[in-house]
Amino acid sequence: MTDYVISPRSGVSISLREGQHLKVSCIQDEQVADLVAFNPNQLEEVLSNGKTFDYAETIQLTTGHTLYSNKSNPMLDIIEDTCKTHDFLLAPCCPKTMKIFYNIEESVPTCHGNLYAALKGSGVKQWQIPTAFNIFMNVPVRPDGNLKVLPPTAKAGDYILFEARMDLLIGLTACSAPASNNGSFKPIGYSVW
Amino acid sequence: MTDYVISPRSGVSISLREGQHLKVSCIQDEQVADLVAFNPNQLEEVLSNGKTFDYAETIQLTTGHTLYSNKSNPMLDIIEDTCKTHDFLLAPCCPKTMKIFYNIEESVPTCHGNLYAALKGSGVKQWQIPTAFNIFMNVPVRPDGNLKVLPPTAKAGDYILFEARMDLLIGLTACSAPASNNGSFKPIGYSVW
Repeated sequence: MTDYVISPRSGVSISLREGQHLKVSCIQDEQVADLVAFNPNQLEEVLSNGKTFDYAETIQLTTGHTLYSNKSNPMLDIIEDTCKTHDFLLAPCCPKTMKIFYNIEESVPTCHGNLYAALKGSGVKQWQIPTAFNIFMNVPVRPDGNLKVLPPTAKAGDYILFEARMDLLIGLTACSAPASNNGSFKPIGYSVW
Repeated sequence: MTDYVISPRSGVSISLREGQHLKVSCIQDEQVADLVAFNPNQLEEVLSNGKTFDYAETIQLTTGHTLYSNKSNPMLDIIEDTCKTHDFLLAPCCPKTMKIFYNIEESVPTCHGNLYAALKGSGVKQWQIPTAFNIFMNVPVRPDGNLKVLPPTAKAGDYILFEARMDLLIGLTACSAPASNNGSFKPIGYSVW
């Protein structure tokens, strides 16, 4: 097992073989990691929140649930989860998010940009970045359907452990949106074995 | 204005020009229509639930909300809505849905198949079919995140009216999943002007 750190407001790509494990850890309190996944042999196959919600019959994914692709294939099993609060509703933050929610016009790091930067060398196009599985992101949905991004409940030491169900090209960030991490950008840890 | 009928368990493609209106109607009680949208000049631009949830800050889209693309562009404004219960969480039903939820092994009509059949002549690939905006689909989410497909609340005469914010290639179905329409497949009406 090797431990890596994703610097604040940045992203990495990770190659996983079927059966390998990916552990994503909160190093300091309250940080979010956007995760996307592609079939490296066929980049048109990509993580899908709609397929996952359908088969899991819940929007709160945790231990025992599987993340599915747009082709209905299992990509990642969640086999351990100490936090239990993640989001799979919201697209990765991007320049328009920064403009609408923070009135930031200038170029700043975003998860969408960081995922693309990490994955473009493998052939992923910018428009192919799907809605991410937002690890540790705290987005409660009220009975009327309204949602709000709240500070993560994750504390240092919390983690989520995945097992790959197929070979995967993963994109993973330390999130760049102030609301997602309570206004303080922090690193994210991960290990692969 | 022209009125069209989508036969039970089938789908159509519709070309909309920016500024045109699309009205989708419940002809008989309790039926669902899966809607997807593409930029006809650049098929890589497609309807996105993640972007839409992000900008609308709700998963219950109705009058006053806008459906966005994966490139953060407005695709469709909802300008009237007599039903107010729609789903944007679940992917269109497909052979795997039929197997898992209904134990149907043989080939039967599905929304995914019907959308692809309607759109492939325009160059859309099967894997490009996104999570649809499921008009009249009734999928309440409980506080614990669990969801369930219930019979639609829509009655004959209910409708939703969209205005196109850009030129669009639309795919639209009369849904083929028994749970979505209370086990009785019915037609869907639409008009364009």
